[in-house]
This record gives sequence, C-alpha cells and structure tokens, in this order.
Amino acid sequence: MKKLAQQIVFSTVAIGVAGVAFAQAKPEDEIRYRQSVMNVIGRNFGGVLSAMAKGDRPYDQAAAVKAASLVEMLSTLPFASFGPGTDKGAPTKADPAVWKDPAKFKTASEKMQAEVAKLPAAARDPATLKSQVGETGKACKACHDDFRMK
Amino acid sequence: MKKLAQQIVFSTVAIGVAGVAFAQAKPEDEIRYRQSVMNVIGRNFGGVLSAMAKGDRPYDQAAAVKAASLVEMLSTLPFASFGPGTDKGAPTKADPAVWKDPAKFKTASEKMQAEVAKLPAAARDPATLKSQVGETGKACKACHDDFRMK
Repeated sequence: MKKLAQQIVFSTVAIGVAGVAFAQAKPEDEIRYRQSVMNVIGRNFGGVLSAMAKGDRPYDQAAAVKAASLVEMLSTLPFASFGPGTDKGAPTKADPAVWKDPAKFKTASEKMQAEVAKLPAAARDPATLKSQVGETGKACKACHDDFRMK
Repeated sequence: MKKLAQQIVFSTVAIGVAGVAFAQAKPEDEIRYRQSVMNVIGRNFGGVLSAMAKGDRPYDQAAAVKAASLVEMLSTLPFASFGPGTDKGAPTKADPAVWKDPAKFKTASEKMQAEVAKLPAAARDPATLKSQVGETGKACKACHDDFRMK
C-alpha cells in the first residue's frame, strides 16, 4: 500500500514536471537534445565499450565502468524528447514510426535500457563486458532498424 | 619483470590507440561531441538543478542527485575534444583563446570541474543545492566569458 501510494506520488510529480518541460520545449531544442544524448551514448558505447569488447582498445576496468555508468544514466534521457510535434523542426533521422507506433517504440527503448542497465556490473570483467556489449548492441540495432531512418 | 613487460605492452598499445584515435577523429566529430556534452550538461544543470535552486521547478531529491551525478560524469568529457585542429571544421562558438592560451583554459575548466564535483552531495538538500548551483554557475560563466564567443 505504501509502495502504491509512493508510485502515485512519483507518477504525479513526473507528469507535473513533464508538463512544465513540454510547455517550454521548442521542437528544435528537443531534437537537438535527443541527438546530443545519443551522440554521447554512441561515443561511450561504441568508442569505449564496444572497442574494448572487440579488442580495438585495451581493456581498462575503471574506464569501462565509468563509460558503462554514463551510458546507463543517459539511456533514459532521449525518450522524453520524442513528444508530439518533435517529428520536425530540425533535421532528424527519427522515423515517423516513432509517432505512429509509440507503444512499439516504448517497448524497444525499454529493451535497450534493460540491457544497458546490466553494463556497469558487466564492465568489471572483460569477458562479461564482451557478452553484454553484444546483447546491448542487438537492442540498439533493433530499435534503430525500426525507428531511425538511414 | 613480468609487470614491467605488461606495462610496456599496455603503454605501447595505449600509444597506438591514442594515435589511431587522433588519426581517426575528424574535427567536425570532435566539435559535435563537445557541443553534445555541453548541451546535455546545460539541460541538466540549467533545466533541472538551477531551475530547482531558483524555485522554477519543485525540489526533488532523487531527480536533483541524478542530474548532479550526470553533470559530474559529463564535466570532464568535452576537454579532450578541443585538440589541435578542432578550432574549425564545423560551426563552433569556441573562442580562439582556447588554442592560444591552453593553460588558462585548463585552469578554468578544472575550476568548473571542482565545483561540479561538489554538486551530487549538495543536491541532497535544497539549501546546499542552491548555494552550490551558485558557485558552479560562476565557474561556468567565468570560462564561457573568456573561451566561448557570443
């Protein structure tokens, strides 16, 4: 019961905050923000974690855990910036499917977030890092295939 | 002896990787990366922490600590992307002073990082958050005044 009450409070606060953000946000700023987050994720996942997993960069536990923690923190941020009206206003590769099938987009983004959430622990060891980079990469690709234009 | 041999191997690999990274990094990608990081810092510092400090957004400890931790993790990332040759190649507001007086730029960026490092602890309480947002904002502004063009 306490948990349910907490959930209701959190949901109400989240809706309130989202409402404020939505009223102020310009589509071009939302597009730029989600692209910025994705760019930082890309360099830290691709340029650090995936490079270590492939052996293109030497494994370094501290650097791997840091990059994985950063990617995890960033992984939830882009999705509040795909609101109504943010399909145009600046150059974007977001596919119209994002707004046509938001439930499928949500499921795909949550799959990515679930895999990314395993990265910080996996990053502590090169073999588990390699395996979890593979699983995470599949989740990234699945969402990009359906929701990012070429 | 084994350890020394390992260090030599690691150092050689690290130099190799740094060389590859430098050879591959295009100025436009570096400019875009540092701008992306700054954009994510800006929204989380300005849109979350500063907004809470000013009372434009209700204080929420979990959201404040999350934003502060994210800003701290991001605060060291832009500065590796101001290397030689990244003063042009894409639109940038970086002032030529970045490359003319790198020591002063380094000092200013480290002052910002030192203030940002205090944010996650400060974010646990609204009064300390407000005070530390003020100190951090001064460090941001000082560096922008000297090293970011209007």
